[in-house]
Amino acid sequence: MYSCSEIFEDKSFMLEALKEAEIAAKNGDVPVGAVVVCGGEIIARAHNEREHGGSAINHAEVLAINEACRIKGGWRLSDCTLYVTLEPCPMCAGAVINSRLTRVVYGAKDARAGAFGSLIDLRSYPFNHKPICVSGVLAKECASILREFFAGKR
Amino acid sequence: MYSCSEIFEDKSFMLEALKEAEIAAKNGDVPVGAVVVCGGEIIARAHNEREHGGSAINHAEVLAINEACRIKGGWRLSDCTLYVTLEPCPMCAGAVINSRLTRVVYGAKDARAGAFGSLIDLRSYPFNHKPICVSGVLAKECASILREFFAGKR
Repeated sequence: MYSCSEIFEDKSFMLEALKEAEIAAKNGDVPVGAVVVCGGEIIARAHNEREHGGSAINHAEVLAINEACRIKGGWRLSDCTLYVTLEPCPMCAGAVINSRLTRVVYGAKDARAGAFGSLIDLRSYPFNHKPICVSGVLAKECASILREFFAGKR
Repeated sequence: MYSCSEIFEDKSFMLEALKEAEIAAKNGDVPVGAVVVCGGEIIARAHNEREHGGSAINHAEVLAINEACRIKGGWRLSDCTLYVTLEPCPMCAGAVINSRLTRVVYGAKDARAGAFGSLIDLRSYPFNHKPICVSGVLAKECASILREFFAGKR
């Protein structure tokens, strides 16, 4: 069961991920933001820096997971939750599996590249870790910031 | 068609990836190595640093792609080839797609987590880029270094 306080907590951390997405947009990057939460505290936050940082690896999730590993002092994030405004692509969903993140909460679905249920669901394959996935938290807000960004590009 | 000189070139770059895998083994990391080649030259080389670097993101492919982006000054590696000793996992196969790498050459297949043909084939989904994949180059040598590493762990 999903309690009222859990829903409130998920929304509150997603708002922090949205703040990161806003930074990406200001830098000219597709606005996706992420935070990693451990023991009720945000231990890492990041935003998409593909253009700004000039690397295909620089998705918000990968940068946040990398920073969380640095903070935790190792590659296992098995007591952590990742909040991300957009459904992870295969690279980022793979990073979630590799880091043993317990839980992933994402906002908007990504029909074009989403790898936790939309285009493909990596949880349906026998990898050695299967994270809990929650989708649709502040989905409207998470989709809206993307829509506005792309409308501004036209 | 795959010419003799191409086969020779692929083997020669895979030997360089194997040298990287050896460094990983010496550091206590699962021995996987990678190089990125552009215009016939190695522009980036890396080995698995999951334990040594303490991050789930630190697979050889991701580190090599990140370095290649830095060298090329941007996230698109569309005129490059990645050589890697082991079939990429979903994170790394996703990184190959995201970076628009033209070609991936890998050595040993990975039945447990391979995402370019073994457990799953990401190229069978309609992502906006489909790399050319060549498998089995120095497969015996690439599998052997892994087998020896795990035998030593027992």
